[in-house]
Amino acid sequence: MSSPRKVVELFYDVVSPYSWLAFEVLCRYRNVWNIDLKFKPAYLGGVMHGSGNRPPGVVQNKFLYMKQDLKRLSEYFVIPLSPPSNPFEAMFEKGSLNAMRFVTAVAEKDKEEHVLVEKVSRELWKRIWSTDQDITEPASFTEAGLKAGLSTNEVEEILNLAKSQPIKDKLKSVTQEALDYQCFGFPCIVCHVNGKAEVFFGSDRFELMAHCIGEKWVGPQPVKPTAKM
Amino acid sequence: MSSPRKVVELFYDVVSPYSWLAFEVLCRYRNVWNIDLKFKPAYLGGVMHGSGNRPPGVVQNKFLYMKQDLKRLSEYFVIPLSPPSNPFEAMFEKGSLNAMRFVTAVAEKDKEEHVLVEKVSRELWKRIWSTDQDITEPASFTEAGLKAGLSTNEVEEILNLAKSQPIKDKLKSVTQEALDYQCFGFPCIVCHVNGKAEVFFGSDRFELMAHCIGEKWVGPQPVKPTAKM
Repeated sequence: MSSPRKVVELFYDVVSPYSWLAFEVLCRYRNVWNIDLKFKPAYLGGVMHGSGNRPPGVVQNKFLYMKQDLKRLSEYFVIPLSPPSNPFEAMFEKGSLNAMRFVTAVAEKDKEEHVLVEKVSRELWKRIWSTDQDITEPASFTEAGLKAGLSTNEVEEILNLAKSQPIKDKLKSVTQEALDYQCFGFPCIVCHVNGKAEVFFGSDRFELMAHCIGEKWVGPQPVKPTAKM
Repeated sequence: MSSPRKVVELFYDVVSPYSWLAFEVLCRYRNVWNIDLKFKPAYLGGVMHGSGNRPPGVVQNKFLYMKQDLKRLSEYFVIPLSPPSNPFEAMFEKGSLNAMRFVTAVAEKDKEEHVLVEKVSRELWKRIWSTDQDITEPASFTEAGLKAGLSTNEVEEILNLAKSQPIKDKLKSVTQEALDYQCFGFPCIVCHVNGKAEVFFGSDRFELMAHCIGEKWVGPQPVKPTAKM
């Protein structure tokens, strides 16, 4: 009898470029490793505030390093990541609250398969972290939703749902769940191993994570990505 | 004709546990990769202050994560790392200024081979990050020096040298060199590749680093460590 698949939860926000790297890598590995990958869209601003953390960008050298680090990682990971022209404005002034409410609403509509959550999240990441486009306006969510395969009616319905109290509450509760796992930023990857939650922060612990869940890390491209980027 | 060895500089402070991981891993790889590993003992306090960075421990969740992260990494990297009973006191209150002046003095005496710098650094790391011993008092430096193979006279001489202005200035200048590379913490690894300095922060970019210098990462133990730990 094969052993049961280990649940791996990915807490992320589409404003976070390192979350995108983790997201794509885990999407590539979910059929290679014996895991059940669960998407946990949450609000990075809430996790930073709740944990008392500061964004890396407020330290000038960290910001410069991050730019270079992301450039190298995007090439090595083969993910078309390119910083927005004004990262401070995009990440901290404009933020992602409405975007993550939209993703949360998609998740509510797509409880079974999570195919749409994956596609919509990817489209939003591509907007902010590849093509330097807005992710705060309803028109932006509509574009992302349509590209992800939703119909105009479905997008309309999800846009309305995203403004509802239950969705606001849901996003809050998933964000609180991340804080309960002692996350202080995203991506925050929670692996459930033998009844214990092993928490990994960032997109640089895959080798260690693989070791913890009894799998093997063979680099960021275990197979050719199946999802069109 | 074989290609020239690539210079890899490791900026570190023995107060930093992640620097210890990087130090041991690079010591293991220096005969596997075509690199010329150079130790750059520097002062973490100066780099944090100069870059405006804060230690990760000031965010409670980061501190808790770091504890768990180090435990997992030390097992996976096979490095006998164990936090001091009072990490805050050891790292931030007591600090490492005198320890790094001592290491800098050893480096001045050992300009050719750097064997002693390696051994003394390792002994200091073992004290603070393995056996929960002091690294601020002259008696501690003496013990570490003797274990590293120095004679009583040599230790005495180095202890005096460590208090001299040229050594204080040397430590300052290496710390400034790290800041000039835009380091904001340690370990900070600078790889000189085709006339360009590629800077890597932390002990979690070895796979990417290997890719950048045209080498292959095969995990934290490419060969059985030759140095006795």
